[in-house]
Amino acid sequence: MRFQLSPEEIQSIVNSKHVCGNFEGNITKISSLQEAQLGSLSFLANRKYSRDAATSKASLLLLPEGFDCTPGINQAIFFCENPSIALAKICQYIEKFNAHPTPPEIHPSATIHPSATLAHHISIGPNVVIGEHVSIGENTVIGAGTFIGKYTSIGCDVKIFPNVSLMSFSEIGRHVILHSGVVIGSDGFGFEKIDGRLEKIPQIGNVVLEDFVDIGANTTIDRARFASTIIGRGTKIDNLVQIGHNVKIGKNCIIVAQVGIAGSVTIGDDVTIGGQVGIAGHLHIADGTQIGAQSGVTKDTEPHSILLGSPATSFKEAVRQFASLAKLPDFLKKFSKILPDDC
Amino acid sequence: MRFQLSPEEIQSIVNSKHVCGNFEGNITKISSLQEAQLGSLSFLANRKYSRDAATSKASLLLLPEGFDCTPGINQAIFFCENPSIALAKICQYIEKFNAHPTPPEIHPSATIHPSATLAHHISIGPNVVIGEHVSIGENTVIGAGTFIGKYTSIGCDVKIFPNVSLMSFSEIGRHVILHSGVVIGSDGFGFEKIDGRLEKIPQIGNVVLEDFVDIGANTTIDRARFASTIIGRGTKIDNLVQIGHNVKIGKNCIIVAQVGIAGSVTIGDDVTIGGQVGIAGHLHIADGTQIGAQSGVTKDTEPHSILLGSPATSFKEAVRQFASLAKLPDFLKKFSKILPDDC
Amino acid sequence: MRFQLSPEEIQSIVNSKHVCGNFEGNITKISSLQEAQLGSLSFLANRKYSRDAATSKASLLLLPEGFDCTPGINQAIFFCENPSIALAKICQYIEKFNAHPTPPEIHPSATIHPSATLAHHISIGPNVVIGEHVSIGENTVIGAGTFIGKYTSIGCDVKIFPNVSLMSFSEIGRHVILHSGVVIGSDGFGFEKIDGRLEKIPQIGNVVLEDFVDIGANTTIDRARFASTIIGRGTKIDNLVQIGHNVKIGKNCIIVAQVGIAGSVTIGDDVTIGGQVGIAGHLHIADGTQIGAQSGVTKDTEPHSILLGSPATSFKEAVRQFASLAKLPDFLKKFSKILPDDC
Repeated sequence: MRFQLSPEEIQSIVNSKHVCGNFEGNITKISSLQEAQLGSLSFLANRKYSRDAATSKASLLLLPEGFDCTPGINQAIFFCENPSIALAKICQYIEKFNAHPTPPEIHPSATIHPSATLAHHISIGPNVVIGEHVSIGENTVIGAGTFIGKYTSIGCDVKIFPNVSLMSFSEIGRHVILHSGVVIGSDGFGFEKIDGRLEKIPQIGNVVLEDFVDIGANTTIDRARFASTIIGRGTKIDNLVQIGHNVKIGKNCIIVAQVGIAGSVTIGDDVTIGGQVGIAGHLHIADGTQIGAQSGVTKDTEPHSILLGSPATSFKEAVRQFASLAKLPDFLKKFSKILPDDC
Repeated sequence: MRFQLSPEEIQSIVNSKHVCGNFEGNITKISSLQEAQLGSLSFLANRKYSRDAATSKASLLLLPEGFDCTPGINQAIFFCENPSIALAKICQYIEKFNAHPTPPEIHPSATIHPSATLAHHISIGPNVVIGEHVSIGENTVIGAGTFIGKYTSIGCDVKIFPNVSLMSFSEIGRHVILHSGVVIGSDGFGFEKIDGRLEKIPQIGNVVLEDFVDIGANTTIDRARFASTIIGRGTKIDNLVQIGHNVKIGKNCIIVAQVGIAGSVTIGDDVTIGGQVGIAGHLHIADGTQIGAQSGVTKDTEPHSILLGSPATSFKEAVRQFASLAKLPDFLKKFSKILPDDC
Repeated sequence: MRFQLSPEEIQSIVNSKHVCGNFEGNITKISSLQEAQLGSLSFLANRKYSRDAATSKASLLLLPEGFDCTPGINQAIFFCENPSIALAKICQYIEKFNAHPTPPEIHPSATIHPSATLAHHISIGPNVVIGEHVSIGENTVIGAGTFIGKYTSIGCDVKIFPNVSLMSFSEIGRHVILHSGVVIGSDGFGFEKIDGRLEKIPQIGNVVLEDFVDIGANTTIDRARFASTIIGRGTKIDNLVQIGHNVKIGKNCIIVAQVGIAGSVTIGDDVTIGGQVGIAGHLHIADGTQIGAQSGVTKDTEPHSILLGSPATSFKEAVRQFASLAKLPDFLKKFSKILPDDC
């Protein structure tokens, strides 16, 4: 993002108790210690990179209090209790500054059904389509080209990026973020074979996203057969994830990119699922379960268990299996010499 | 979906020969036996849940004929030959009721090339773009924001959800369903290395979807290099699936979410492919093959074979390998005690 | 694609020094030797299919110079040094003919911010949205429904298919191709757990696509936390790929469908990554690395190494492990007979 911050503005954000040196100019980018140039802000978050701090060409450095470093010419050092938190505050400031440069407006090209209920201070982008009986809460921003099917309700402070598709009857809580290309409420995948043909089983449920849920770009969440597919409060889902019909996910889970969760799976709270994991249908993933990337889960899990592998087993056991498998070729080769011929 | 059905309307749908008890009111949701409340319809599809039927708070129960159950106060029981089929009929009724509440219309914001041919009784949503020489059959519904490239033909009774992209020259049969975010006819992925640079191989074929094909949300199907990528009649494809160029899929196949099928694969009829499976290029998957989730198929398959694993082998063999691998760490540990030192 | 080429036009493209026989009519499709019919052009690229050349019903055949074949009735043979290259030239001709049948125009339904800078000879489709301070180079084509966020710059000769989402501050080079459904610059997936809740880490960087990059349908590339996620010159990415924040990819790489690359991975030049591969965060993949399909990479790689498996190891070692695992069940069965009971 484009920004320009004076050292004084940065000081007003981070409130450093100890400033050393002086930079005459504006900060226009954030860089690693090594890549920093004139106009860069940089920071030391990990002591592993301590050496880079002394040689960094950053114009402004965020360093931990007590760290031994002298500013170069036209360089300022702001000592902070926690440089990572200081940096996060600066980034939030920049993000906020860039996010809403224009006042909220309803673009004239949007197609809004007269029965829709829109709260105050809403921003609706070009070519947005809003169906019958949709309701949208305050401060919500809806990006260009997004489609919102009938009877969908959207809470306040929601951010929907461009080109999202929200099917009818979806229920979206407050402070939800939906990235571009997300599809919420597509039909569940269910068929019955009748006379050799596959007949579609009607999917008349919906999708519920509770408050503070984030959904990544091009992720798809299917509507329930009846009742609801539910994503619990504060759960964060990455890009290109597939959530099947009737899935119920608890609170504060983290689901990394390209995970696939089959129909009717239930997932507890505080579960972490690594990238490209698959979870078979109708399983229960207990609270606090952690699942390593590319695992294939075929059984219910115990609370706070850590799993890996396809088929998934305990992390410890999976690592043992991988190590054993690595030894197996040499072992079999050696062994062929001593195995009796008749075995 | 929102609905309101009186017990009399439900009886007109399911035609029960034996009704017990009486519910004064309307049914407004479908729930499991345990979750049912006042206004819920519930059903017993699996005898495993027989006990829940007697204690269910559903206002209307669909139970199998001859099942022993007495209705509670303000509760009706409709005995049916097959409660699952009865439920499916009710769901179809609700779905149909919700699907087309408004008469077909061509939204004034749609951009339709004058050379396009549109049959009667078509619904075209806001911001749809229809290119030169496109033809669209009767009763077809095209959701908002969908793009249809030139020379594409679409049959009758097709349902295209919002924000679909159909590239030029696609051929879409009758009764096809395309969910939101689907991309049909993107360029096949083919390059030739010339002087260290990757030069694109032209992809001038198209995609053909035969009648009764369903494509899930955000699935992508590439156009052929020349000739056609073909999905056969009645085949159902789930969300986020990738189909490479020149692939030919037969009839009535089921392809679950996140499957990837590389270029020039041919697939017979009645093939079932589990979630996250990968199939390498140019293979032939014979009629009736079943492939377990997360498998990686590297060889042609025999008709009606059942495969699992990566690399995939027969299901039986894969299960043996998984079981053996689970025993391997302990085995090697024990064995290290008895193996002669010089081995 | 639809086309009609006379044998004379084809000769003007391929410049054959030796033409045999004669076809009176037009070529309207390209087919394999076996599938060819009246009006088909076919070709022999692989000597494996030599026998099919003699019996092919193609109206026009491209055969290698010196190949022994006599034309049938109403059939022409064009002998060429390299029939594959001759075919590629014909396909390019057809592609070019079909690609731009209409002069460039800016569709009146597009929403273009007055601060945007548009070069000459640009085509902007219906319902495109272009934000503040966007700049677009000459000969660039932007498909219907595409969203381009503010401060994004796009080079010349870029082709963006319909329904693409380009978030703010993206930098797109020259001759880039973005297929439908692509999302560039979605927020990186980063959270910090504070008091049991997941707080979003601001993602204020951007995405840079260098010249000649191709991105497949529905692929997602996240913006950097700060600085840039970078895809190097000439790199080609297939459909449904996920690229995490801060990833840096070198030049002329090939990344096949459904690959997932976690945050902060760096990838060298000329790397090939097979379908459905996962690469764990912060790794370095060296120049010329080749990674087989479905691998899970958990370690940095050596230049020009070839990897396979999950967890990935050298290709050779992975193949040995797969072969050993296949023998393991029988081995353990035999072995159980001779292992002393106390082991």
